[in-house]
Amino acid sequence: MKLLSIGTVAFDALETPFGKRDKIVGGSCTYIALSASYFLKKSGIVSVVGDDFSKEMIDRLKQRNIDLEGLQIKEGEKTFFWSGKYHNDMNTRDTLDTQLNVLENFDPIIPEAYQGAEYVMLGNLVPAIQNIVLDRLTTKPKLTVLDTMNLWMEVALDDLKEVISKIDLLTINDEEARLLSGEYSLRKAAKKIMTMGPKYLIIKKGEHGALLFGEDEIFYTPALPLEDVFDPTGAGDTFAGGFIGYLASTDDISFENMKRAVVVGSAMASFCVEKFGPERIEDLSLAEINSRVAEFKKLTDFNLDLSL
Amino acid sequence: MKLLSIGTVAFDALETPFGKRDKIVGGSCTYIALSASYFLKKSGIVSVVGDDFSKEMIDRLKQRNIDLEGLQIKEGEKTFFWSGKYHNDMNTRDTLDTQLNVLENFDPIIPEAYQGAEYVMLGNLVPAIQNIVLDRLTTKPKLTVLDTMNLWMEVALDDLKEVISKIDLLTINDEEARLLSGEYSLRKAAKKIMTMGPKYLIIKKGEHGALLFGEDEIFYTPALPLEDVFDPTGAGDTFAGGFIGYLASTDDISFENMKRAVVVGSAMASFCVEKFGPERIEDLSLAEINSRVAEFKKLTDFNLDLSL
Repeated sequence: MKLLSIGTVAFDALETPFGKRDKIVGGSCTYIALSASYFLKKSGIVSVVGDDFSKEMIDRLKQRNIDLEGLQIKEGEKTFFWSGKYHNDMNTRDTLDTQLNVLENFDPIIPEAYQGAEYVMLGNLVPAIQNIVLDRLTTKPKLTVLDTMNLWMEVALDDLKEVISKIDLLTINDEEARLLSGEYSLRKAAKKIMTMGPKYLIIKKGEHGALLFGEDEIFYTPALPLEDVFDPTGAGDTFAGGFIGYLASTDDISFENMKRAVVVGSAMASFCVEKFGPERIEDLSLAEINSRVAEFKKLTDFNLDLSL
Repeated sequence: MKLLSIGTVAFDALETPFGKRDKIVGGSCTYIALSASYFLKKSGIVSVVGDDFSKEMIDRLKQRNIDLEGLQIKEGEKTFFWSGKYHNDMNTRDTLDTQLNVLENFDPIIPEAYQGAEYVMLGNLVPAIQNIVLDRLTTKPKLTVLDTMNLWMEVALDDLKEVISKIDLLTINDEEARLLSGEYSLRKAAKKIMTMGPKYLIIKKGEHGALLFGEDEIFYTPALPLEDVFDPTGAGDTFAGGFIGYLASTDDISFENMKRAVVVGSAMASFCVEKFGPERIEDLSLAEINSRVAEFKKLTDFNLDLSL
């Protein structure tokens, strides 16, 4: 197994200015695994659901070559549930309800077949569980990527700092980078965060694109300007899945290749927001992905030799 | 005269989290002309000041090959004064004081030597005066660029719409694009604004870069992530000056060349914010500009052929 992803598999209730869904499949691990599945013949997930989880969705995940040995199905328990409402600007949202359910006592068991995975994606989840997962890996991965959110900076900062100190690359959004570092300038924030452990940092800026920081290098790709963003849920996870899926498939963690992976992740995220939930990233064709990546190239490419 | 710029020449009082200046030279036309001066042997400005204006600054403008025949100096009157305070995020500011002074009865007289200018930059100013300037041009320019601000959308929308209907390219920021179009999506906003007259639109997004829209084309360059932004005053005007100065010097208004001009404008703006007022864009070397443009290329360049 080249790639192992850990995170939530959930039911979401969503409301955006474009509509409402009462109960659709969501969760960080769902988006990550679906997005990465376009680049890998197989990948494994470690997560948990209740016995109320959709059998049809389980089949759809399997069809996308996602191995589900690490997905625990708890009899008599309910799947993690999150409900949120987006504001008109689509950049901010209110959490209306969170029911931890099966997540409350989640013990992340890593199947033997997943040990030795060279690429590990720790999707957004309680930092304490992310730490346990790292402790249970018998081989050090080639690349460990961590995604997290502002909530954990507020309620579990010590655990979060511990996991951050152990990983290679952190992905967070601009507000979270400012919160974690106490610096407003993203360049200063990046410097400070990289002293906490990670060699690489990705700052996701939503409609404004994504920044990749290495030791002495920066790469910045804008987001594709879209006519409509129907539902931003899962865009960050989809980005992370495309990013690590592409890296795992090319097996090259140079900064040059990470730049490509950031573009792939951005392209995948640009699909994600076009429909509700993970709908759009279940039915993509490779031709569509190729053509979206070409749009990114066209959007940002210029030739300039200032012969002043 | 290849380029003619119209706008304000002013005194500003500024306060940012990095410091305070009680009375420094500012104004849209000052920033535009200084920024464009790196690309042209000569350019003309049409503006007005009082007899309190700095003689030393007049000399400095002349030294940068800015022709001042069109700068009216009103005896016994005072120069336009603006005072503002930036918030900690540097993206928002409060206007503390505005004293129109000489601007109150500004009659923009275009010197005969300026007639026939192929490139005309209408810097931020009362739209009625921008309209008068266009009426007084005896030859239709090859390219007319307009910059404006939210204030005129609120207090002089009819005049603003009139001038917008006559120009080729409009530059505004993202909030202004949303205000003018009533659309949140910048792609939809751009479509709507381009039905009002201009063939091209630039949406300036500050620290998030700039978008150039043509009929069926989009170009997006991010801003250079900076450690510190000392003072954002004039960054938009400096962008516009670099943009039109580069276009005028290359005399090529194809979309491909406009892309280059957007990068040049962004590079000039990235210098502007490094010091207070126009200080930094008075003392640049061509080598510095070249090297900044190369940083933009390095920041955004990637090679990706997804052989999926």
